[in-house]
Amino acid sequence: LNELVKFCLCFPIVASARNRDTLGLRPRDLIHKTLRFETPRAPHEKLVLEQLVKIYKRDIKPMEDAYNYNYLPIRTDVTVGQIQSKPIILFLGPWSTGKTSMINYFLDTDILRVGAEPTTSEFTVVGYETSIKNTEGAVLVSDKMKEFSPLEKYGQGFIEKFGGIGLPHPLLKKVTFVDTPGIIENRKQQERGYPFNKVMQWFIDHAALIFVVFDPTKLDVGSELETLFQQLKGKESQIRIILNKADSIASQELMRVYGALFWSLAPLINVTEPPRVYTGSYWPYEYKLNTNSDLFKQEEVSVLQDLNDIIENRLENKIALIRQHAVRVRIHALLVDEYLAKFKTERSFLSNQEQVKYEILNNPKRFDIYKAVTSKHNISPFDLPDPEIYKDFFTHNPLTEFMSLEQHCGYFSGCPMDDLETAITTSLPGLLPSVNQLSKTEL
Amino acid sequence: LNELVKFCLCFPIVASARNRDTLGLRPRDLIHKTLRFETPRAPHEKLVLEQLVKIYKRDIKPMEDAYNYNYLPIRTDVTVGQIQSKPIILFLGPWSTGKTSMINYFLDTDILRVGAEPTTSEFTVVGYETSIKNTEGAVLVSDKMKEFSPLEKYGQGFIEKFGGIGLPHPLLKKVTFVDTPGIIENRKQQERGYPFNKVMQWFIDHAALIFVVFDPTKLDVGSELETLFQQLKGKESQIRIILNKADSIASQELMRVYGALFWSLAPLINVTEPPRVYTGSYWPYEYKLNTNSDLFKQEEVSVLQDLNDIIENRLENKIALIRQHAVRVRIHALLVDEYLAKFKTERSFLSNQEQVKYEILNNPKRFDIYKAVTSKHNISPFDLPDPEIYKDFFTHNPLTEFMSLEQHCGYFSGCPMDDLETAITTSLPGLLPSVNQLSKTEL
Repeated sequence: LNELVKFCLCFPIVASARNRDTLGLRPRDLIHKTLRFETPRAPHEKLVLEQLVKIYKRDIKPMEDAYNYNYLPIRTDVTVGQIQSKPIILFLGPWSTGKTSMINYFLDTDILRVGAEPTTSEFTVVGYETSIKNTEGAVLVSDKMKEFSPLEKYGQGFIEKFGGIGLPHPLLKKVTFVDTPGIIENRKQQERGYPFNKVMQWFIDHAALIFVVFDPTKLDVGSELETLFQQLKGKESQIRIILNKADSIASQELMRVYGALFWSLAPLINVTEPPRVYTGSYWPYEYKLNTNSDLFKQEEVSVLQDLNDIIENRLENKIALIRQHAVRVRIHALLVDEYLAKFKTERSFLSNQEQVKYEILNNPKRFDIYKAVTSKHNISPFDLPDPEIYKDFFTHNPLTEFMSLEQHCGYFSGCPMDDLETAITTSLPGLLPSVNQLSKTEL
Repeated sequence: LNELVKFCLCFPIVASARNRDTLGLRPRDLIHKTLRFETPRAPHEKLVLEQLVKIYKRDIKPMEDAYNYNYLPIRTDVTVGQIQSKPIILFLGPWSTGKTSMINYFLDTDILRVGAEPTTSEFTVVGYETSIKNTEGAVLVSDKMKEFSPLEKYGQGFIEKFGGIGLPHPLLKKVTFVDTPGIIENRKQQERGYPFNKVMQWFIDHAALIFVVFDPTKLDVGSELETLFQQLKGKESQIRIILNKADSIASQELMRVYGALFWSLAPLINVTEPPRVYTGSYWPYEYKLNTNSDLFKQEEVSVLQDLNDIIENRLENKIALIRQHAVRVRIHALLVDEYLAKFKTERSFLSNQEQVKYEILNNPKRFDIYKAVTSKHNISPFDLPDPEIYKDFFTHNPLTEFMSLEQHCGYFSGCPMDDLETAITTSLPGLLPSVNQLSKTEL
């Protein structure tokens, strides 16, 4: 409670229930009821995260390093910083559709600057601090133990357009919001001075929930937005499309606009099921008169529930993510080991080592490498990467420089592969009951 | 007024304003106000139609016959019956979505049988009669002067599934409704015993307005519906998609369904603009409680206005249609004449007539036939048919059997091409002011 009082006092919009009304502000009970952000983080959470880091460092990282896992073209790199990070809620879409206002609304603040022109020119991380605090992008990327350090590779041009705002809002103890510059069609990428699409891709790949925000005046899909949706491929389950400012038009017009939005999106998202599109008006002011405010409230509850699911399941999701990562590292190690084994066998028949390597890398099928891995280790063939990836991988990481799985085993220390497998089958799933325990306490 | 009284008395649902309420029926003022079907047909209308028939018979038909126009693969054949026919309002879509109920609703009747199972198994023409009257399909197709006679070619199997219902409703003095069997996925076409798709295509090609009716439970698009939308290509401006029974689900669910419908339709309709989709509940009963009845009423008004536009503009549209037809007949005649001229010129150089014909038909471009027609007669190249069509046309209609345009001219009778051109430039547009005059009287 003490915290809640502090939080209210320090915030720009300080409004009692009665006060809100005269200011034309909506009551915030929808948000409070659904997100329950006064519930403190359970002490258990820290413990589980520490366990996760421990398992990662002890059982997974050694295998990553032994087989240069990070040289694979993977979309999600796992670091200690990311294990300890909060889920990222990403906001993107055309300019001035209300992305920033939406964040302000959820956090009951007006600290993020909003406007009718393209206002947000920076990637802005909104995270928890005990008092309001701005952080430079350079600071955000410099701490190697923190989640945003991998972004340093996108250069100084980006870092200058990257920043953080810390707020003492309890919701930010559980999630981190990331605001992005609005998509402006016809703006050339080079004008931004940094690889905008690559940066966007990084945030998309690391986001737990992605709000793509439209408004009734910006439904045209141009090439920039098309690129964005290409980047969103494979993240369909994280995407929530928002048709914001829905109370700015009449009901009948809203239906047209809603249909037109689906019409525009259909060629961009190639899944059978239509995407979830939520209408509503995501800012603190009352709905305009004679609009379907009941519908908008229901839609907002759905949006908040999706957000709450991310919050409630953040630990399960993290454990699942790390376990999935461990599975991939294991498959990688098994594949390299199999390539190596085949190379050693074939080498004894042929004299030209380079020729043997070339043959194996270019025709892994002929040498049954993938078949061997699936059958020996009970791995689904659908989980195996494209052989082309390994052809590329081994040009930068010479096959002969790797040791076999067996060679990594020590008399006392045992085999690191056994540790990895124990993590996958026992230690990581073992964290789940404690998470469930935690949720129960929290509720 | 007398007619209106008669109409009310003879109808199954006889309900005064108060009576309607206790029966759970909606007031019908929306329909009455928008369609104004008590307004009698102006006497002028008959006169204009007679003029149209006269111009058609005198100036257009002779050229059609002289150059076998009807052997071209054209989608809309013009007959005297069609000139005199009322605009066809076609209802199609998945089974049991409320197509028949919609017709009943517009006509304040329950004479067409409706049900939760696929009820309509026939193509049913609902037209005007002074008293309720059923007509067999065989009768409908037998009158050569009537619009439905071309349907005879689809065989006895179809004619048995074709019928008419006559009603003394004033709206039917201005338009004709056509109800169709609902699309059932997984039903094989041959089971119907007649060329269902061809029949459907005929109705689509001759309809002034096409309502494609869906309901929230039938949004899945299967191969039958896909075929249907292929048949609807080129008729986009006539299509109105109805999401019927919209009051059977909650507002939020309706938005989802509405979006899903656009999602399903997007791959089927390849136009940039989204189609017009109207929600609503198109039957006589009151909207279910707690649904967005204001929206549904607005949507219904939009639907009725579209229907009213067809009614108001029926004469203009008909004149425009006949004029468009005359333009096509003229282009056809000019093309045949040009083929003939080229043939005669080339024949004098080469001895082998068959060889000359073959060359001209297969390489009309080399002989500048199409270029000559566009430049000599100021015709847009986009209005010219595909040369392949003429290659096919001349195999059934030997080039040498046609006479040149000049040969058709008589000393006293003049040239039929001049008559056709006068019709296009003067007589047909000349009918328009009288139509406008008529509308003003009517209003």
